[in-house]
Amino acid sequence: MVLTMAEKIILDCDPGHDDAIALLLAHGNPDIELLGVTTVMGNQTIEKVTRNALAIARVAGITDVPFARGAHRPLVRQIEVAESIHGESGLDGPVLPEPTIELDARHAVDFIIDTVMAHEPGTVTLVPTGALTNIALAVRKEPRITERVKQVVLMGGGVNVGNWSATSEFNIVIDPEAAHIVFNECWPLTMVGLDLTHEALATDEVAASIAAVGTGPARFVGELLEFFGETYREAQGFDHPPVHDPCAVAFVIDPSVMQVVKVPLDVELTGTLTLGMTVADFRAPAPADCTTQVARNLDHPKFWGMVVDALERIGDPQL
Amino acid sequence: MVLTMAEKIILDCDPGHDDAIALLLAHGNPDIELLGVTTVMGNQTIEKVTRNALAIARVAGITDVPFARGAHRPLVRQIEVAESIHGESGLDGPVLPEPTIELDARHAVDFIIDTVMAHEPGTVTLVPTGALTNIALAVRKEPRITERVKQVVLMGGGVNVGNWSATSEFNIVIDPEAAHIVFNECWPLTMVGLDLTHEALATDEVAASIAAVGTGPARFVGELLEFFGETYREAQGFDHPPVHDPCAVAFVIDPSVMQVVKVPLDVELTGTLTLGMTVADFRAPAPADCTTQVARNLDHPKFWGMVVDALERIGDPQL
Amino acid sequence: MVLTMAEKIILDCDPGHDDAIALLLAHGNPDIELLGVTTVMGNQTIEKVTRNALAIARVAGITDVPFARGAHRPLVRQIEVAESIHGESGLDGPVLPEPTIELDARHAVDFIIDTVMAHEPGTVTLVPTGALTNIALAVRKEPRITERVKQVVLMGGGVNVGNWSATSEFNIVIDPEAAHIVFNECWPLTMVGLDLTHEALATDEVAASIAAVGTGPARFVGELLEFFGETYREAQGFDHPPVHDPCAVAFVIDPSVMQVVKVPLDVELTGTLTLGMTVADFRAPAPADCTTQVARNLDHPKFWGMVVDALERIGDPQL
Amino acid sequence: MVLTMAEKIILDCDPGHDDAIALLLAHGNPDIELLGVTTVMGNQTIEKVTRNALAIARVAGITDVPFARGAHRPLVRQIEVAESIHGESGLDGPVLPEPTIELDARHAVDFIIDTVMAHEPGTVTLVPTGALTNIALAVRKEPRITERVKQVVLMGGGVNVGNWSATSEFNIVIDPEAAHIVFNECWPLTMVGLDLTHEALATDEVAASIAAVGTGPARFVGELLEFFGETYREAQGFDHPPVHDPCAVAFVIDPSVMQVVKVPLDVELTGTLTLGMTVADFRAPAPADCTTQVARNLDHPKFWGMVVDALERIGDPQL
Ligand SMILES: [Ca+2]
Ligand SMILES: [Ca+2]
Ligand SMILES: [Ca+2]
Ligand SMILES: [Ca+2]
Repeated sequence: MVLTMAEKIILDCDPGHDDAIALLLAHGNPDIELLGVTTVMGNQTIEKVTRNALAIARVAGITDVPFARGAHRPLVRQIEVAESIHGESGLDGPVLPEPTIELDARHAVDFIIDTVMAHEPGTVTLVPTGALTNIALAVRKEPRITERVKQVVLMGGGVNVGNWSATSEFNIVIDPEAAHIVFNECWPLTMVGLDLTHEALATDEVAASIAAVGTGPARFVGELLEFFGETYREAQGFDHPPVHDPCAVAFVIDPSVMQVVKVPLDVELTGTLTLGMTVADFRAPAPADCTTQVARNLDHPKFWGMVVDALERIGDPQL
Repeated sequence: MVLTMAEKIILDCDPGHDDAIALLLAHGNPDIELLGVTTVMGNQTIEKVTRNALAIARVAGITDVPFARGAHRPLVRQIEVAESIHGESGLDGPVLPEPTIELDARHAVDFIIDTVMAHEPGTVTLVPTGALTNIALAVRKEPRITERVKQVVLMGGGVNVGNWSATSEFNIVIDPEAAHIVFNECWPLTMVGLDLTHEALATDEVAASIAAVGTGPARFVGELLEFFGETYREAQGFDHPPVHDPCAVAFVIDPSVMQVVKVPLDVELTGTLTLGMTVADFRAPAPADCTTQVARNLDHPKFWGMVVDALERIGDPQL
Repeated sequence: MVLTMAEKIILDCDPGHDDAIALLLAHGNPDIELLGVTTVMGNQTIEKVTRNALAIARVAGITDVPFARGAHRPLVRQIEVAESIHGESGLDGPVLPEPTIELDARHAVDFIIDTVMAHEPGTVTLVPTGALTNIALAVRKEPRITERVKQVVLMGGGVNVGNWSATSEFNIVIDPEAAHIVFNECWPLTMVGLDLTHEALATDEVAASIAAVGTGPARFVGELLEFFGETYREAQGFDHPPVHDPCAVAFVIDPSVMQVVKVPLDVELTGTLTLGMTVADFRAPAPADCTTQVARNLDHPKFWGMVVDALERIGDPQL
Repeated sequence: MVLTMAEKIILDCDPGHDDAIALLLAHGNPDIELLGVTTVMGNQTIEKVTRNALAIARVAGITDVPFARGAHRPLVRQIEVAESIHGESGLDGPVLPEPTIELDARHAVDFIIDTVMAHEPGTVTLVPTGALTNIALAVRKEPRITERVKQVVLMGGGVNVGNWSATSEFNIVIDPEAAHIVFNECWPLTMVGLDLTHEALATDEVAASIAAVGTGPARFVGELLEFFGETYREAQGFDHPPVHDPCAVAFVIDPSVMQVVKVPLDVELTGTLTLGMTVADFRAPAPADCTTQVARNLDHPKFWGMVVDALERIGDPQL
């Protein structure tokens, strides 16, 4: 018998439809120990995404995990939200319940620092699924977390693919300076970018599997996907919505759900056409000390199997 | 009889020869209430400038003011120190005593936030005399300080004059993103830049007045000015060293020591020749809602009179 | 008796009210030999400014000078004209006569190259008073002109002063890449920028002196200044209009009409706030091989005396 | 029987090993009418590449085609040659014969303009296989060529692949402003970039087919490929050298030798990591008025068959 320790993660998110599913996956999967959830402006304002995070907690029956509110705006640039994709609330579609848990008193930045420093070195994984503002502020305030975290597995960026511009992805381009900070720290960093997440389509078959779970949280996910599918169809011409954020969580649960390739990564800060591009240098094999890698080729059935499994384990929590 | 409340300030500095004199001025002048001293890398590494700050405290007999250590590097750029001006220790010249006070347990960012939020609105002035990294991190972590501080009076930048490049000043250009953040917040901001501080020359007459005080701290300042004068002569061709940082403190003590003019200010982040330039727009009168101003035309005798007066008040503290 | 050779110049211009006066000064002054006039888009489209140049020729009685049409747009940027200053025609105000002379068959770029190469080395001065597109194209097509021209004396840029943005002047910022090319060639270059030309105000006294000449061309100049004065009052808040372009011609006639200081100059191409800024580095004395200088401190009476004198010499040409 | 008119082209090149093969292909193929060859600095200085072009003409027996020399440096940037790939001469490997033909008296820019304007509209194709400096200068000097050329088929750039930096290709990045000009004109433009040309490998089988031709020019090509193969192996880790430039000629001869996809293209001018990147926007189908396309998926046998066929047709010219 093999005993695997659950992976300890902090989910730093801006819910957001796909963030919601990432949170449900992290909560429902037994191989994840969710140390905390931190929020960051992005898909909507910090007020809205924080409220959304707490509402999702109620839907999922999460009661014992600290939630901490984070950055209200990007480091340098003006705030820009993704209302065309996530609606006015940031989580349009389902009716959201009133939150029942309270926020941690600490700022997300301090929550991240305290949590990383309180655990053994090399045991805490940061999973950002929004702008990298909180993580950037944390590592500038407490540089020791760079060596202490196990790894950063983030949803954002892309190699040769963009959504917010021809070359940039939303999470990165709304706070490119924060991304530059995070990508240039010496921690192991896995970029789960658009190359990967554009394969994580919520097909009709996927929707049917989720509906078949038959619980409240599953219905909630179904309603999220319905709204998300429509905005993606209208705004970006997708037949089925790409469900980005849970891919990062899935990689932490089981790296075999995708492939990764080591490659130097950096973030463009001054380009006129390329601001916020995550630049990968594939001209030569990655050097031995390269700490960054990009994800490719999702195992679609395995990924959605994880999501359905998590929903089944969550069941129907008492609200 | 007119009773004036002393101005409450936090001095955020990177000592640094002129930072040392700024600290002595703030400590010795009765119209300043020094709420705390925070440090930031710049003239030297954060370890060195923090140690220097504590050593200056001992020289000046400061025992009841909290000192908090801050940022170890700029937000986005690599660290770059000013060894050519301030030497290997950041305070070369005098022999530095071993510090006797201990650092506050808090990070400078939290010290600034806590202190501003703990005092009445509109009562605390921030006086940065180094890179603006701590202030930028503080206002991004706690946006409410923008409205709560009385004003920011900073040494840095310049209109039509540079020292680290043709168009940029050291404090700004080593962390231009932090400066961009601080200059674009809606607090009253006075830029005491090179236009002003290049008039704050420590002439022979000034040196003589300081020597005449005859105390330990005065001798300490004399030794600082001797070293500073030599590096400025060699590195930048000055006959007498411009003593930048106490000018910002002097403005808080008595604004009549210089003139100010309201003008929109911003910081250039992408220029090839102009990175870190503080751009002032003088094409039209400043709009009514303009919150920024630049200092000009130092009253040289009044300024140095303040410094000498502070040294006389400090006297010869028991070490 | 001292015999001075007249200075051979090519006037490269975009008339434009002040270009018109520059052309009249060059034509009327006996110390200038006008080898040709080339046009460049700027104040208005190339069609309009070329037609304006020919119309001015008729007003001034210029019949034996070649006029060649040049660039229709900037090298890289989109075209941007100065209608707010020069009106719809580029020379609003006076009624313009139909031109009577014909354009040279050559492109301005070839006219410049041919003329410079046909004269003795070191004898031809280029006097650009518009965007530097033609000069840049010429020197890239025929690099030998760099060594062969005597000097470039241009109206454009400014040290510490802008008009089209806080830091940039119109002629430079509408084609900054061309300016970068021209400023970085190794020919002697004098920048007659806004610092100087904002002193060349057409005061009421100036207007009276011009009116007193009493000729057709003088009345034409009077009408130009009236319109120019009004747009400058409205658009930029000047009491009297600064008459930029003839200052460059005046410097060629008699350098004592202003002061010059050698200083390294370059043009900013990537700044967000500083695009097109002419960056001067005053931190140290100019190196011995510095080929650039900036003009300062106009002798206002001498300058306007030159203009009046030229008008008197032109008299009343037969139209 | 189908009669096809030969395609009239101007080859604008910087020989350069692959430029040499492009010239041989254009000369030997019966479906190309080579109106002229223009040179531009790039792989080596303008002196060297021009001499190389004339030497190749002698090897190939080209006697009746005008050769015109072009730009000696990029528009804005400093010159940077590719000695690591093409050697000191720009065409290292074979012994080069003394040229026997003379250069056209015109500058390449004027040769291009004159030739395009002298032919019927829509009949002349420009085939640049070096930096785009000449083409950019030509279109800025004579804007009417934009509408008059049939198309531009260029070797340069790449989608998602670079060689001179992670994101840029040599021909584009050494004069990005020129490339920006050419990519933004409204002529039909086909980018034959690294995505395509990295498939044009000169394998052992290719080398054998060329050797089998058994002529002087074929041996010359064999020696070029030997040197080129070695530098590509050392500098960029290729097993066999990618022979870029003839791919553009091949597309003019027979577009079916590769696939093309319409997509908006632009050139990045300010990126720190992305200067000179050719940015393609694949987020949505190209708009109806899109004039740019990129090449993909080379038919390797057909391409090399064209080259061998051209060599066979050239035979053994009398030198
Ligand atoms: Ca998200
Ligand atoms: Ca300082
Ligand atoms: Ca003009
Ligand atoms: Ca080539």
